[in-house]
Amino acid sequence: MSAQPEPKSTHRVVGIIGGMGPEATVDLMRRVIAKTPVRDDQDHIHLIVESNPKIPSRIAHLIEGSGPDPTPELVRVAANLQRAGADALAIPCNTAHAYADSIRRAVSIPLLDMVSLTVMEIAASGRTRVGLLASTAVHNTALYATAFSAHGIATLLPPRQEQVMELIKAVKRGDTGVPAQAALGRIALEMADRADVLLIGCSELSVISAGIAVPFVDSLDVLADAVVRFANRDRYTV
Amino acid sequence: MSAQPEPKSTHRVVGIIGGMGPEATVDLMRRVIAKTPVRDDQDHIHLIVESNPKIPSRIAHLIEGSGPDPTPELVRVAANLQRAGADALAIPCNTAHAYADSIRRAVSIPLLDMVSLTVMEIAASGRTRVGLLASTAVHNTALYATAFSAHGIATLLPPRQEQVMELIKAVKRGDTGVPAQAALGRIALEMADRADVLLIGCSELSVISAGIAVPFVDSLDVLADAVVRFANRDRYTV
Repeated sequence: MSAQPEPKSTHRVVGIIGGMGPEATVDLMRRVIAKTPVRDDQDHIHLIVESNPKIPSRIAHLIEGSGPDPTPELVRVAANLQRAGADALAIPCNTAHAYADSIRRAVSIPLLDMVSLTVMEIAASGRTRVGLLASTAVHNTALYATAFSAHGIATLLPPRQEQVMELIKAVKRGDTGVPAQAALGRIALEMADRADVLLIGCSELSVISAGIAVPFVDSLDVLADAVVRFANRDRYTV
Repeated sequence: MSAQPEPKSTHRVVGIIGGMGPEATVDLMRRVIAKTPVRDDQDHIHLIVESNPKIPSRIAHLIEGSGPDPTPELVRVAANLQRAGADALAIPCNTAHAYADSIRRAVSIPLLDMVSLTVMEIAASGRTRVGLLASTAVHNTALYATAFSAHGIATLLPPRQEQVMELIKAVKRGDTGVPAQAALGRIALEMADRADVLLIGCSELSVISAGIAVPFVDSLDVLADAVVRFANRDRYTV
């Protein structure tokens, strides 16, 4: 056996590239807390969260073509979190996963990829028609549609995508009340007949999912599960 | 005029020494979001949060005499947040302010001191008798009582402090529902006759404050206001 440095800590730390938007970041933290069985503070998961709402808009860059590229700031935050002690990264923003490859190249720790994890979960469940509730930027970049088609899964869009986009912008303004929840519930109901399952593929919509009365998978919940699983595995096992 | 380096950013970043407990940290973030008027993500405040529930128990160290000193880990997190880009620090845990001097010495950025800010707010309001809802560690260290007495303000304790301590431990186990809220409401009611105002001086109790029907000041809310004020002031003004 070779000599090993004394381990300072055996728990693993997850770094969160957050603030896109801040509500969704807090929602992920809340879900991680709720999914962790605890008796006292010490049983909870150690997170380092950069909630950086100043990251340039992904929507403006990808679909409106009007804003600066968020890549440099995303890469800076990723490297900052690794330096601060993160053993893996998570991004509670589906649209930002359009930049996942640049983020992966900037660090030497794994990215708990919300899009890949969600696609794998739905593929494992045997569903073949997914109704996707997501930003227009996610549709335009085919972030989910490409990954689903590799598993033979069809991606269906809402009849009026502009309504979904309006709701996402409303949540970013802080409008997360019952009317927003009910509006998302109506859109979900309209799509339910054509799909085996709905997918919430935008973390702003996760924040207002309480009004959805049909079966759905929430990508933010899939990510929270992955954070808890990663953190609770011992740092010194593979 | 002397040459100045190009400012990379004019907004100020607040570092949160969190995880004591994680629920209270999320609650502070939620309050900061709610207090910030926004139209889009970019208007929100940039936070770097180390939610580190592995920091040794302040209660075990200060009152049970059974645990390790949390100072080294608090100081490490403070320095880590400054290195990551924080322009000021905040700690959403009143009890941890017993270690505030050590934290201040470890960094060259200001600490938005929740205890001092709360005492100043109550002193400015002219109240002279404060009913303090806090951990037994806060009472034993006279963290608030000493600061209040400098302003001629008397600090009153609950008739059955052990009930308050039970509630704090319940929140740390994740028990934040209506029964816990109602129990805190009853304790508050019992104290209301003897005090001009109640003070929630424990961020776990802030999480379950919804059942309190008498006037109170919440230290976590005072801290959230200070975070918003600090972050919205331009980095290059004094």
